[in-house]
Amino acid sequence: MCLASGLTPDSSRMTPKDEEEPRISSSPPVPNHSTFAGRRLRLSSWASSAAPATRDPACNWSCLLSGLVSLNIILLGCAMVSASVFNTVSITTTHLQVYLITIMILSSCWMVYYIIYISRGDHAVLYKDGHAGPIWLRGGLVLFGLCSLIMDIFKIAYYVGYLHCDSAVKVVFPIVQAMFIFVQTYFLWLHAKDCVQLQRNISRCGLMLTFSTNLMLWMTAVTEESLHQTVIPTSNTSRISRSNAMRVSSKDNCECSHSACGIFEQASNYLYPFNIEYSLFASAMTYVMWKNVGRLMDEHHHHRLRFHLRDVLLGPVNGLLVLVAGLVTFIVYKVDVQEEDEAKREEALRMHYIMNTLAYAMMSASTLAGWVLYGLDQREHVSGKNPTRSLDVGLLLGASMGQFSICYFTIVAVVATGTQGELDVLNLVSAVLAVIQLCLQNGFIIEGLHRQPYPPMPSQVFANALATRCHSDSTLMVSKSGTVVTSDVSETHTLPHTYSPARLNWKRRALKEICAFLMLCNITLWIMPAFGARPQFENPHGHNFYEVYMWVAVVNIGLPFGIFYRMHSVAGLFELFVIS
Amino acid sequence: MCLASGLTPDSSRMTPKDEEEPRISSSPPVPNHSTFAGRRLRLSSWASSAAPATRDPACNWSCLLSGLVSLNIILLGCAMVSASVFNTVSITTTHLQVYLITIMILSSCWMVYYIIYISRGDHAVLYKDGHAGPIWLRGGLVLFGLCSLIMDIFKIAYYVGYLHCDSAVKVVFPIVQAMFIFVQTYFLWLHAKDCVQLQRNISRCGLMLTFSTNLMLWMTAVTEESLHQTVIPTSNTSRISRSNAMRVSSKDNCECSHSACGIFEQASNYLYPFNIEYSLFASAMTYVMWKNVGRLMDEHHHHRLRFHLRDVLLGPVNGLLVLVAGLVTFIVYKVDVQEEDEAKREEALRMHYIMNTLAYAMMSASTLAGWVLYGLDQREHVSGKNPTRSLDVGLLLGASMGQFSICYFTIVAVVATGTQGELDVLNLVSAVLAVIQLCLQNGFIIEGLHRQPYPPMPSQVFANALATRCHSDSTLMVSKSGTVVTSDVSETHTLPHTYSPARLNWKRRALKEICAFLMLCNITLWIMPAFGARPQFENPHGHNFYEVYMWVAVVNIGLPFGIFYRMHSVAGLFELFVIS
Repeated sequence: MCLASGLTPDSSRMTPKDEEEPRISSSPPVPNHSTFAGRRLRLSSWASSAAPATRDPACNWSCLLSGLVSLNIILLGCAMVSASVFNTVSITTTHLQVYLITIMILSSCWMVYYIIYISRGDHAVLYKDGHAGPIWLRGGLVLFGLCSLIMDIFKIAYYVGYLHCDSAVKVVFPIVQAMFIFVQTYFLWLHAKDCVQLQRNISRCGLMLTFSTNLMLWMTAVTEESLHQTVIPTSNTSRISRSNAMRVSSKDNCECSHSACGIFEQASNYLYPFNIEYSLFASAMTYVMWKNVGRLMDEHHHHRLRFHLRDVLLGPVNGLLVLVAGLVTFIVYKVDVQEEDEAKREEALRMHYIMNTLAYAMMSASTLAGWVLYGLDQREHVSGKNPTRSLDVGLLLGASMGQFSICYFTIVAVVATGTQGELDVLNLVSAVLAVIQLCLQNGFIIEGLHRQPYPPMPSQVFANALATRCHSDSTLMVSKSGTVVTSDVSETHTLPHTYSPARLNWKRRALKEICAFLMLCNITLWIMPAFGARPQFENPHGHNFYEVYMWVAVVNIGLPFGIFYRMHSVAGLFELFVIS
Repeated sequence: MCLASGLTPDSSRMTPKDEEEPRISSSPPVPNHSTFAGRRLRLSSWASSAAPATRDPACNWSCLLSGLVSLNIILLGCAMVSASVFNTVSITTTHLQVYLITIMILSSCWMVYYIIYISRGDHAVLYKDGHAGPIWLRGGLVLFGLCSLIMDIFKIAYYVGYLHCDSAVKVVFPIVQAMFIFVQTYFLWLHAKDCVQLQRNISRCGLMLTFSTNLMLWMTAVTEESLHQTVIPTSNTSRISRSNAMRVSSKDNCECSHSACGIFEQASNYLYPFNIEYSLFASAMTYVMWKNVGRLMDEHHHHRLRFHLRDVLLGPVNGLLVLVAGLVTFIVYKVDVQEEDEAKREEALRMHYIMNTLAYAMMSASTLAGWVLYGLDQREHVSGKNPTRSLDVGLLLGASMGQFSICYFTIVAVVATGTQGELDVLNLVSAVLAVIQLCLQNGFIIEGLHRQPYPPMPSQVFANALATRCHSDSTLMVSKSGTVVTSDVSETHTLPHTYSPARLNWKRRALKEICAFLMLCNITLWIMPAFGARPQFENPHGHNFYEVYMWVAVVNIGLPFGIFYRMHSVAGLFELFVIS
């Protein structure tokens, strides 16, 4: 009786509505019943030999253990970073670097072990999570990884020059970091989508170790960067340039043994922000992999996105105009800001604020229009569980907090001291508009992603079997067995015929225009901070109002998240564009 | 066909495995099918008139909106708190207090509206979440609320004395805070378990507003307390006593108009930590309520716990010994530490560390024994979803981070400077043991709560219908309809008869002993920090190694979480005791 209507002995042990734990024994929706039966048999025979399936679903033990490992590594790291900041005598950079080298070597070892041994196992990866590790994330990882590798090479060359009088750990650290980055980028490029099934306990701990290592590297980099920026006291010209970063940590009476030290130092300083981004990206990806350990989900959930610019014109054209204007402003800003002339620098800031204000205003207006369109169209919400999507939304909201913080700190500073001059007004207006834009855009992307996509998307439309459940008796028969089935694609024909892709109605077209416009605007807003524009430091308001330490910390923590947020938004808007 | 086997049109719209969102249309497990049908009819007629059930399950719109409201309130508050710390000229305490008064009044208004209007609606609360707002949390809330009210009265009396020369906002603030605390305590006492069904959008926003208000009050109180503790520079005797807290913020040339000012100030200073705890408790409870908005779950899930000390002896007796020893040590410590004599204070610290070290060692040992017992007994893990339980576990782990941080900061400080003398060794050993104890205890509680309870617990045993699903055809018939049914209590008789409550086997008895012992130990460890023992400030190591600001911040943020953690652990262990 248990075996009736597709319920194998395995699925009888299924955890219903199992919330946060990876499901080992829940039956995945698969397109074909014969394939399904075959895979199920293989799976259940493996599951019974490898680990008792009834014990893992809760994932208590190994989730807890890996969580505690991560907690301990991070908190010990926090204490060491704080100590190295507040007590440079007892805990030097060298101590901290030894700690980081240790955890980097440990996690590299695990990754190599995973690549060579676990992932090649017979049932190591039964399913891949189509939503995890999207191309923009992996592409970004490789890009920032390359920059970090170059930074490490410069650092090695620099510290080799000081080897005769400084600790050898300073040379070993970039070497180990380069090795770690290489291994990790390779690992994440290949395996970011894996739902690991073998040695789940070890895999969870390994992933959490890698996650904590990345967080620690990020924390150290942010702290170091902040300290360097606060070494020079705010002068009258109130420019805080990145200080002689690495020389500070070297011994004062130590001379570089080769002549290229200065160049290497300068070059590696420019690459610092990329390294911070790299750690953020890698953290996000390893966390998603950790959540996916033991999960069984079907690749067929991942539909192929089709992208073409047919039917849209206004959005891309306007977006391109903003992009070009942004690039021009950015180049002029970077040139002007280097000048010693105070008036020139104010001019650069003014131009930057005006550009941002206009961009935010236009983006807010078009997002509002998008909201109106949502109100008009009657698409259902996607129900059903999608943990990766939830994680995605969490990452989007979390990353937006960086820019939110910077904006609110700016608003409070400007309002409290009163707007003295045009520059302050522009700063205030652009910060307020940024807050509004962030709120609207977050809502727009999240609401859009939770709506049922328009066809042609047979597989995804059908992922929500509920909307059509009562249309057909045959569907009901299957749904009674407790599994959501995606096989009966013919079912989609019961949807209203007006959704035909051949003739896009005006609402879909307008949504596509808006998405295309917002995408290009977000790229524009990404370029400026990503390539080193820091108006927060050029404008003296922030560090005059808050103390330098505080302001530098807020900006240095907030900005990398802001950069991540813009990239993430572009990816979200791209998906919206395709499903609209 | 849709209506067959218990599937009403309503439940056909049910969201399967709906992960994180409250389920409005999922059919709750109910004990009786006739009652079920009746309730379902009422519910579906209400749902169709009140709000389209297909739109709410995802809860996107209102969850997102309320989340954004909270995010904005908190980040604006963060910026204001930072500004009031770093720029006392532009943003004074008065500005911050006006902001706090505004959000307190707004959330009080919403709570009153909820109590008077929403909760009395016809279908306002169809279900109560039995796991939410347990008695220890509500009891703690009332206790700390009372202390906070007294503190506010003292503050009012104090600031009335300065009214002729200081801002009136300083009198208004404690008045509004007292009103807010009164309304909130009443609201949470009555409604903490509510799963709100009416006006879900407004309710979510209201709850998030209340949540943010509590977080802001907590943040302000922690910052204020930290600042007061760092006003007096570390002297040779290295005692940081709480400074003349409120007088600092009053104008220097301002004299109190009545003679009792000093007494009121002293008294209110002692009550500060209770206010911090109150805000933490209220935040946790409003967050749980927010998660429960729109959720439909049955009260029958909540089983009555039966507590008796039959069969256990060793655990309670040893626990009581630790408790008495702890109380004695605490009293002696409090007396000795007040002395001016350095030797006396060192003696007090030594005694405190020895007491803690012994307690941690005994607790770790007995937790390890508990783990061995878990390994021996063959109970299944509770499968099935329990969002409140997940939240509970999250709160436990999150709260433990406070003590983890303090311990790791201590370990790094002592190891880096080297142990100079007996006191350092004791400090180090007790910190290391505390980390071990925290890891073990977290694991023990979480693992235990996720195990299937021993009988007699018919309703909860049956909540996991999966384990027994294949034992009986009749059960299978019901489970095929997609709902987990708790009605067929006779089913529990198929469980092995050796689980009879009349004769507890040795494993259950030992588990009960361990839980009782750990409970009393946690109470002991709760008493000391809760009633004002701050060895972290008496021992000069911390603020000599880190700067005073850093150390005070770590301790002042970590300790209240530590206190919360101990209370939460006691509640968890109590539950383990009852189900073992």
